[in-house]
Amino acid sequence: MQQQKVEKLRKTLKEKGPDGFLVSNFYNILYLSGFKTLVDNEREAWMLVTIRNAYLFSDSRYVSEIASSPAKRGPRNDISIKLITPEKGLIKHLKEIVAEEKIKRLGIEGDDLKINEFNRLRRELINVEIVPTEKLIIKQRKIKDEDEIEKIRKACQITDECLAEIVKTIKVGQTEKEIAFKIELWLKEKSYDLAFYPIIAIDENSSLPHYNTRAGNNKKVKNSSVVLIDFGAKYRSYLSDITRMVFVGKPNNEMINAYNNLLTAQTKTIEKCNNKMVCKNLDSFCRQELNYPHSTGHGVGLEIHEYPKISLISNDVLSPNQIVTIEPGVYFENKWGMRVEDTVLIKEKGVEILTKFSKQPLIISN
Amino acid sequence: MQQQKVEKLRKTLKEKGPDGFLVSNFYNILYLSGFKTLVDNEREAWMLVTIRNAYLFSDSRYVSEIASSPAKRGPRNDISIKLITPEKGLIKHLKEIVAEEKIKRLGIEGDDLKINEFNRLRRELINVEIVPTEKLIIKQRKIKDEDEIEKIRKACQITDECLAEIVKTIKVGQTEKEIAFKIELWLKEKSYDLAFYPIIAIDENSSLPHYNTRAGNNKKVKNSSVVLIDFGAKYRSYLSDITRMVFVGKPNNEMINAYNNLLTAQTKTIEKCNNKMVCKNLDSFCRQELNYPHSTGHGVGLEIHEYPKISLISNDVLSPNQIVTIEPGVYFENKWGMRVEDTVLIKEKGVEILTKFSKQPLIISN
Repeated sequence: MQQQKVEKLRKTLKEKGPDGFLVSNFYNILYLSGFKTLVDNEREAWMLVTIRNAYLFSDSRYVSEIASSPAKRGPRNDISIKLITPEKGLIKHLKEIVAEEKIKRLGIEGDDLKINEFNRLRRELINVEIVPTEKLIIKQRKIKDEDEIEKIRKACQITDECLAEIVKTIKVGQTEKEIAFKIELWLKEKSYDLAFYPIIAIDENSSLPHYNTRAGNNKKVKNSSVVLIDFGAKYRSYLSDITRMVFVGKPNNEMINAYNNLLTAQTKTIEKCNNKMVCKNLDSFCRQELNYPHSTGHGVGLEIHEYPKISLISNDVLSPNQIVTIEPGVYFENKWGMRVEDTVLIKEKGVEILTKFSKQPLIISN
Repeated sequence: MQQQKVEKLRKTLKEKGPDGFLVSNFYNILYLSGFKTLVDNEREAWMLVTIRNAYLFSDSRYVSEIASSPAKRGPRNDISIKLITPEKGLIKHLKEIVAEEKIKRLGIEGDDLKINEFNRLRRELINVEIVPTEKLIIKQRKIKDEDEIEKIRKACQITDECLAEIVKTIKVGQTEKEIAFKIELWLKEKSYDLAFYPIIAIDENSSLPHYNTRAGNNKKVKNSSVVLIDFGAKYRSYLSDITRMVFVGKPNNEMINAYNNLLTAQTKTIEKCNNKMVCKNLDSFCRQELNYPHSTGHGVGLEIHEYPKISLISNDVLSPNQIVTIEPGVYFENKWGMRVEDTVLIKEKGVEILTKFSKQPLIISN
């Protein structure tokens, strides 16, 4: 699987020109090699893909881990591991390889590499043209392979199971942060992880389309509350994303009507998802009878916001093996808001909805 | 407090030349303004400091939060809030301010800004020279103010309390990840957070100086185990860092001797910490009778690895109101290793050890 990813990148490189490509982004290295360092922002690993070879650079703590459990930690045999030491850093390694493989144009990730890193490469790799690129690998990540789909499918299953357990425990008096913490706890006890910090928004807070539970005022569940639950699970680095509404006690007619309209729009939009659908048209379709100040959906994979974007200005086109969310909402200021979201796999014909948790109005007794 | 931080940055700018400085780094924005977005890598906020003014740019979800609870979410009155919208992004705002304040040279964070962001600034801000800088604010962050010290002191207290509770629960059969999870749980139940994912290393794993518990083989506590516990707490964005050793059952003489030697070196090194101490000399001093493949310590603050660095090649000089770790270790391959670490405040005379948990050999019955 991973080998095909490197091959695909090579094909793009051949079209675009650079004869070598330096990968600095944590998620892109994970995607191409299966290799993952502890933190995502400390440059603990680099990758170089050339016409003939692929190299992974990291320091002794990770390289010894690879040696001790290659099956678990990846990467594959056809990626050469290069040890970074205080004496021989990335630049020295690159100088050697650039000379050996006669690399003239080295592509770099212009949306990831820092200016000072870029300037250092230019200064040190004389006779090599350093070529900034944009979104090369993240665009490739749009199309998932079978292994990736399986992991996201599993992440969605986990989300469904977690939600079923959490909904049972919601009761009057609980705070948003308590519910968020229960989700985190449920996942981590099973050695899964959060895809992102959950958004739990009660009553007025649910009317804020981008409510931030961690920073918010931590409302409590009351009798007749509307509770928005937006979260996802991480399974072997791959993510899921779901939003469901919980009504405490009997929702009034206005709520039920709003919910039903929203659900109808969301369901119809999912039905509309198909191979070759232009994303901005899908977005417009979903908004016909709704008004929400965010996009209709986004790709999901190693990161929670990937391509394609499903927004009013997105020229992306749906195609098989993409995985996207469909998540329209309705928001009534100072009152309440609702959102329904599924993670959906685009197929040759139609879709597979990966998050299978019921979308019937979820009413719990107070 | 925050005002002094901006003033100090202005002073540096005046010495170095740029008449405006664009701050992109999440932690530097948090440091200068007290303002914090939800994620640290999505450019949800920017800051611009000019000779006369300071501006914070963010989008509606954060700006409405600031409006709804200014006291909690900061920033201060003398920072102008500029709303980023789809119609008026950062660049448009910058163009206006650059024209108004006649900015000729705009400093940027060369170790944070991406190449494509840099190129866009150069393309759009015509007649403004864009000047990459390096480590300007992170170096300023070396010296903590009273408020920062108080927060780190509290984070250290939390660490001490947490450790006391966790040590009580360690028993034969527990895995490394279970212990790590208990720490996380203890902190999060109290609405604190982890400073970083804990390192829990049992027996052979403790002999790996950079053992990664999350990716490791999850050893269990056995009778006669050596358990290394390295973790920290986050309190209002500020961090602590501590390492202690736990012995299960009676440690043998070799262990006790190694531990006592290590503790003596660590204690003497802390005693040696003083105003004007050159860090590489401190590092050498600590290594006199020990051999460990990592640095002796590092600054701690909003991030877990800050300045000063206490390593063999560090020309940093200790001075009052710096907060650093002192953490020598001993490692016997395939056997066990030990490390003892405290977080320490440098004072005019001597130090205050902020992590106060006992360093007597911590022996629990099996």
